Amino acid sequence: MAASHAPHLTERARYRHWVSDTIRYSDTDMVGHVNNLAFAAYCETGRTRFMHEFPKPLVGKDAQTVIARLMLNFLGEAHWPGVVEVGTGVIAVGNSSMTLGQGLFSEGRCIASAESTIVMIDQVTRKPRRVPDDFRAWLLGYKID
Amino acid sequence: MAASHAPHLTERARYRHWVSDTIRYSDTDMVGHVNNLAFAAYCETGRTRFMHEFPKPLVGKDAQTVIARLMLNFLGEAHWPGVVEVGTGVIAVGNSSMTLGQGLFSEGRCIASAESTIVMIDQVTRKPRRVPDDFRAWLLGYKID
Amino acid sequence: MAASHAPHLTERARYRHWVSDTIRYSDTDMVGHVNNLAFAAYCETGRTRFMHEFPKPLVGKDAQTVIARLMLNFLGEAHWPGVVEVGTGVIAVGNSSMTLGQGLFSEGRCIASAESTIVMIDQVTRKPRRVPDDFRAWLLGYKID
Amino acid sequence: MAASHAPHLTERARYRHWVSDTIRYSDTDMVGHVNNLAFAAYCETGRTRFMHEFPKPLVGKDAQTVIARLMLNFLGEAHWPGVVEVGTGVIAVGNSSMTLGQGLFSEGRCIASAESTIVMIDQVTRKPRRVPDDFRAWLLGYKID
Repeated sequence: MAASHAPHLTERARYRHWVSDTIRYSDTDMVGHVNNLAFAAYCETGRTRFMHEFPKPLVGKDAQTVIARLMLNFLGEAHWPGVVEVGTGVIAVGNSSMTLGQGLFSEGRCIASAESTIVMIDQVTRKPRRVPDDFRAWLLGYKID
Repeated sequence: MAASHAPHLTERARYRHWVSDTIRYSDTDMVGHVNNLAFAAYCETGRTRFMHEFPKPLVGKDAQTVIARLMLNFLGEAHWPGVVEVGTGVIAVGNSSMTLGQGLFSEGRCIASAESTIVMIDQVTRKPRRVPDDFRAWLLGYKID
Repeated sequence: MAASHAPHLTERARYRHWVSDTIRYSDTDMVGHVNNLAFAAYCETGRTRFMHEFPKPLVGKDAQTVIARLMLNFLGEAHWPGVVEVGTGVIAVGNSSMTLGQGLFSEGRCIASAESTIVMIDQVTRKPRRVPDDFRAWLLGYKID
Repeated sequence: MAASHAPHLTERARYRHWVSDTIRYSDTDMVGHVNNLAFAAYCETGRTRFMHEFPKPLVGKDAQTVIARLMLNFLGEAHWPGVVEVGTGVIAVGNSSMTLGQGLFSEGRCIASAESTIVMIDQVTRKPRRVPDDFRAWLLGYKID
């Protein structure tokens, strides 16, 4: 079984990048609460908006990022209507991959933490390629201490 | 208010093109039944798989189809777990558009009917263009009588 | 084919109830723009949040509202990342049903208009029942002129 | 960073419970392939349909299962149109929780493996409770060797 997340992913103060997402009625399921897939959607909202803020085009470098692993810890329930705030930061940057850490917060509580491993690949060969230096430096500016 | 659908859209015998879609747990909502958005997804499954069967590439003609209108009549509830069968046919083909008719069936009942207006556009100019003759002939082979 | 929507559904000034929804990365499809199902989700966000603001419990009256028809006109494309603002108002209130009108706006344009017919039913018998007078009066306060 | 999944989760022969899910057009995203959230949906399809097959009502025992952790390894891309086959089995059963293993297969390849930790809770107190003996025995009948 997988190792647990570092506990600090549940602390708001660890994150410098924030987005919020609206809980949709269709995010709920027959149990009456927000379905676990919506939690994964909130993570993606935070992750993609975070990466999108890097001011230089990765595409121009013939590179693309793909998600290789998602680990999601469900810590509390969420309900409609409401808002989910998503904090995103960087746990580590490797040679051709990076690991992001996230916390989802709603109604004053941390409802989930997540780790995503993102791999940088060449758009043509689909093989891993080195994370560019400027992107690496930018990522490390959001490192979770 | 919009006119009602022709009643025959609820009759299985009217359709010659069929696909089935699996009801997902996440298709349900807090009311306990399948959410209306999933009905729209089942319609899209039928519509896109129908159009995809045309054996010649529309893309090679620099043409693209876009949905301009969806009218969906909700006639019954659906529940997880289960399957939805989607019948799709053609109501009319105009100069640059076509109207598809659909019936959604689950547990032996018609749970929804739908009409979709699809417009053929030029991929570059984004303006309507004439439905090609071979595509028109193929579409009319699925006409709902 | 269904009659067109009243053109004024595309005018922001007609609406007094507004919500916004975040465009999610997963709302996009392989065409590269926001998929039509997400438009239906934005409509539902507006519709359910609007109904939810009625300050008295409909449930306590053993009544429930269900959607009977959705008519959605697609007028423009939407793209990630971004926000959709949803204006919702009331077109008509009948004996046991009501018709809502909506406009979806993104990047300064109206990208869709929608009409939804909502039926009030008895939670036990599942048969239509009269719209309560206080709910009717509240609804008419949001009438689209 | 989390430990990798056991490699055998990618082998079809390890699973005795199978469901299939239809790839929906709306499962795709602007990259042109199936979005990672749809992978989580396919896992949920397999997981909930597997649990649903237990022939005795867990609800009648005032118990409910909730997902506590999802770990998803993305191993390949999926494309529309197509089908995903989901194999589900049991990795371990603890005192009040169980870990399921899954493999997602499309076009002859394993496109993802997943581990889900499911906790059994009391419906009223929301606290963990012991997995009933008959449910435990049933689960262990699907153990992944």
